[in-house]
Amino acid sequence: MFYYKESTQMNDTFYESGYANFRSADIVSSVFANKTTVASCLRRPLTPHTAAVMGENGESEIIEHHDDEEMEKIRTPRNHSHSFLESVTSSDKDGYSSTQSSHRLLAYSDALISIIATVMILPVAHTKFQDNEELKQSIQALLTTKVAVYLMTFLIVTVAWAAHIRLFQVIERIDDTLALLNLACMMLITFLPYTFSLMATFPNNILGILLFCACVMVIGLIQALIVLYGFGRPFLLNDQIQMSENQAYYKRRILEVIMRVPIMCLFASIFSVIYIPLSYIILAIVIFLPYISQCLKWIRSKAIGGQVEDSPDSVPFYTYHPSEPLSKERVEAFSDGVYAIVATLLILDICEDNVPDPSVVKKEFDDNLIIALQEYGPEYLAYFGSFATVGLLWFVHHSLFLHVTKATRLMGLFNTFSLAFVGGLPLAYQLTHEFPRGSRNELEAVQISCVIIFFAGLFQLAMWVTALFTERETLHPYVRYGGREHAFMLAKLSLYPCVALGAFVFTCVLSRFSTSIFHMMEIGVPFAFLILRLVVRVALAIIRWLFCPVRNDLDSVPVEDEDLQLPINDIVT
Amino acid sequence: MFYYKESTQMNDTFYESGYANFRSADIVSSVFANKTTVASCLRRPLTPHTAAVMGENGESEIIEHHDDEEMEKIRTPRNHSHSFLESVTSSDKDGYSSTQSSHRLLAYSDALISIIATVMILPVAHTKFQDNEELKQSIQALLTTKVAVYLMTFLIVTVAWAAHIRLFQVIERIDDTLALLNLACMMLITFLPYTFSLMATFPNNILGILLFCACVMVIGLIQALIVLYGFGRPFLLNDQIQMSENQAYYKRRILEVIMRVPIMCLFASIFSVIYIPLSYIILAIVIFLPYISQCLKWIRSKAIGGQVEDSPDSVPFYTYHPSEPLSKERVEAFSDGVYAIVATLLILDICEDNVPDPSVVKKEFDDNLIIALQEYGPEYLAYFGSFATVGLLWFVHHSLFLHVTKATRLMGLFNTFSLAFVGGLPLAYQLTHEFPRGSRNELEAVQISCVIIFFAGLFQLAMWVTALFTERETLHPYVRYGGREHAFMLAKLSLYPCVALGAFVFTCVLSRFSTSIFHMMEIGVPFAFLILRLVVRVALAIIRWLFCPVRNDLDSVPVEDEDLQLPINDIVT
Repeated sequence: MFYYKESTQMNDTFYESGYANFRSADIVSSVFANKTTVASCLRRPLTPHTAAVMGENGESEIIEHHDDEEMEKIRTPRNHSHSFLESVTSSDKDGYSSTQSSHRLLAYSDALISIIATVMILPVAHTKFQDNEELKQSIQALLTTKVAVYLMTFLIVTVAWAAHIRLFQVIERIDDTLALLNLACMMLITFLPYTFSLMATFPNNILGILLFCACVMVIGLIQALIVLYGFGRPFLLNDQIQMSENQAYYKRRILEVIMRVPIMCLFASIFSVIYIPLSYIILAIVIFLPYISQCLKWIRSKAIGGQVEDSPDSVPFYTYHPSEPLSKERVEAFSDGVYAIVATLLILDICEDNVPDPSVVKKEFDDNLIIALQEYGPEYLAYFGSFATVGLLWFVHHSLFLHVTKATRLMGLFNTFSLAFVGGLPLAYQLTHEFPRGSRNELEAVQISCVIIFFAGLFQLAMWVTALFTERETLHPYVRYGGREHAFMLAKLSLYPCVALGAFVFTCVLSRFSTSIFHMMEIGVPFAFLILRLVVRVALAIIRWLFCPVRNDLDSVPVEDEDLQLPINDIVT
Repeated sequence: MFYYKESTQMNDTFYESGYANFRSADIVSSVFANKTTVASCLRRPLTPHTAAVMGENGESEIIEHHDDEEMEKIRTPRNHSHSFLESVTSSDKDGYSSTQSSHRLLAYSDALISIIATVMILPVAHTKFQDNEELKQSIQALLTTKVAVYLMTFLIVTVAWAAHIRLFQVIERIDDTLALLNLACMMLITFLPYTFSLMATFPNNILGILLFCACVMVIGLIQALIVLYGFGRPFLLNDQIQMSENQAYYKRRILEVIMRVPIMCLFASIFSVIYIPLSYIILAIVIFLPYISQCLKWIRSKAIGGQVEDSPDSVPFYTYHPSEPLSKERVEAFSDGVYAIVATLLILDICEDNVPDPSVVKKEFDDNLIIALQEYGPEYLAYFGSFATVGLLWFVHHSLFLHVTKATRLMGLFNTFSLAFVGGLPLAYQLTHEFPRGSRNELEAVQISCVIIFFAGLFQLAMWVTALFTERETLHPYVRYGGREHAFMLAKLSLYPCVALGAFVFTCVLSRFSTSIFHMMEIGVPFAFLILRLVVRVALAIIRWLFCPVRNDLDSVPVEDEDLQLPINDIVT
């Protein structure tokens, strides 16, 4: 009975405070804003202490403990006993109770954007080729257009995604209004590929441009609205900005950066009426704006001599510097989404198209389902092959990001390139089985697959090399140059590029056996990953045995590592 | 130069210890197993202390601080200074350095499984209907089969997903081998829908059953392998099991539970040769096994009287009890995946099919793209409508899980049902625009949409009611019966069922205006969510004003809450 009484008492105060809030919402939010700032100041000294306590447990660097959840559980009963007190004083905390962590909203946005980024590969994959026929010029031209649309869409969507990351690095907490605004923003972003595909199909019609510009402008306006809403309720902002005295400056600067894109799109849509190519140029500038402005800044700084720094204090947002931090969590979530979609792209087709019609089976195959399904054999092979390859590339990506402590913008760019190639993989695998064995087309298809795998792997390697340039900030000690896992990580990352390159060379030499070589690669690589650690250890032992007596202080450099010495020496000297 | 020297020294010891490990891997792992147990014992008393430190910061219950990451950053330089020492003593920790958090592997698995669960809606959505024609019997039968396949696939895949959760609640840390084994397992799970679709198309052919059983058996064997591997390296296990003295018992029990399914599938495949219906029955038992065994246990406990408890200590895994904890994080990730896929299902079609051919536009529409695109108008409407509805249902789900502190198996079941209905939404929206205005088919399509929305929302509400039954463990104090956000949460959860029910009733009465009513609902609901908090406050104020002088201790019960009083009273008395 005690519980019931307590709850009704709580409700009493709840209604009173709720009613009071309803009338004095403005006062409350301003009072609350100050309270939160104080709270976050108080919170600050706790963190190092907690870290020090946790730091004694020195073995657990790689494993992320989900202490949050445990703490939540422990804290919850504690709060329950305080809930009466809290409900009494709830009037000045009401704004806070509707404030939420943005974590899941961002995960959902990442999932949506990753799907949209990979959607445009479907029209490419569904371009049908005739059997027993060389790739005709017209089909090749069509295919080239579609591939170009896919790559451009991927680029545009990832640019929108990068803007989204930047926005929610500033706004760290959300409430219901922000969640709904973000959903509206997502809806427009998912519509971008369609407008882009209209532009590509009708390059001389202004409708595509107008639709695209309209979408981008509305997205920009919604983002500006989110920023204004966030700065109106400072407890939603990043702690660093919340505590800063230059909030007004940040607000102006961020709005400037955000509004740059819609304004340029407005110009593009106006120019589209006069002269269409001009508006295409403007749109291209919009996309590459961050890189262009960064280049200009770099040239200017070289020309003048000193570093031009125009921000009053150094909050590392909206700087467009290549080492600007990029939320590692979100890069992982986005990559997971792309890998998952790409891995399952072929099963989507198989489930829909490769179940034979019962009447056809009865008529043509004497009711023998096995023979009827043998027709689809190559498609199953393509599915398993592409799933395994994408899965293993994910595995490499996962291993890499396990040891990355901070992701930078440049790493994000390489990640995007790698993912764009990964998106083409199912298509390539499908192609390898669409042509008769031994034909020139089949050889071409196998070679295209090898090239795609090679570049997907190479850009992953490029991410690691980028991370090595600033390894003290971005990498875990284990995988830094000289760390225990360094050689193993290098072997993991270079396995796919090496194998793909090898397969490509082999297919050039032994063009008759191209498919067999390709299938052997598919089957061999998973086992190669399983025994990789063993192989690396044996290789290192052999290297050590060979070089140890000769050069004692350089035996630690693995043979394949020669090209990586330069960045490390740069850092040392 | 110091850094460079240190790193070469580290490498020296690295190679030595690496080589030593390579020869004495077995001894190391057994030594290490003991060390980790000690370490985890040491770690235990730290957590409450940390929680107490954090607990002083009493306002931050809802916001999840990602302290992990901050700590990681602070800890990293500290470790760097210790890295030389660590590399010297690394021989007995080498197994640990390759051990990883399973967090991202599980996120990727969730993404894959959520895609696969929703794949089978595509064949349903792509069933074409002729305009101006009543839904024919044959098409309806075909559609029913496809919908049944979709629902069954969804069920099977979510059962596989639940087994996967259970497995990785026991195995909390992974290494490379486990990651690769899990990928193999995922590959087979993604193939399940196809085998199921074969079964549905050829119910009298044993091939579908054999393929399905083969997949399930191999999945079971891989899972058993994962368990054996995990128990062979106890530092990978859940801390609770790691510290338990009954490890051998758990291993046996978990293997028993896992192997039950493959063994039954083996029987099903044997019986399929003799008598096919029997093997279907066995397969149905396999799927509903957890629920059946739970029912039997419950009946037995009622018949005997006392609670039959057969486990020596109470580790809450593999019990199949409805209140068995389900990883909240994974339920969220899986739901996010399904909502994201479903929200974008229609844009996939639009991007591929709704870009008109330039030659057709030139010939039929006088090069007027706008008129050509007007044909697709209804499809854009369907896209935006379904995206908004799915997005808002996600928003409700998000709000609910923000206040759920622990997810149970029963809540997971209701979540699955809700998601299965959500998966049907794009199809329903597409249907509403495929028939001529005012036809009987259009009315039916609108009503089907309303029914689907109603059930999707209702099962979300059911989740909350389930959580209320054990609110002290599963809900945040704010939303418990009597909490400050209780009425608001109820309003949020009941908005969609109420609106859908209202729209359904209106379309029955005013059947001529069914589409207009439906569109008004689509447009109105997002705004309803925006002003919901205000509306709830006003409603509560009015209720309070009406009932306050009469019954002072019952005014806290909102009017809509009447049907929820029963569970609460049960708990009180």
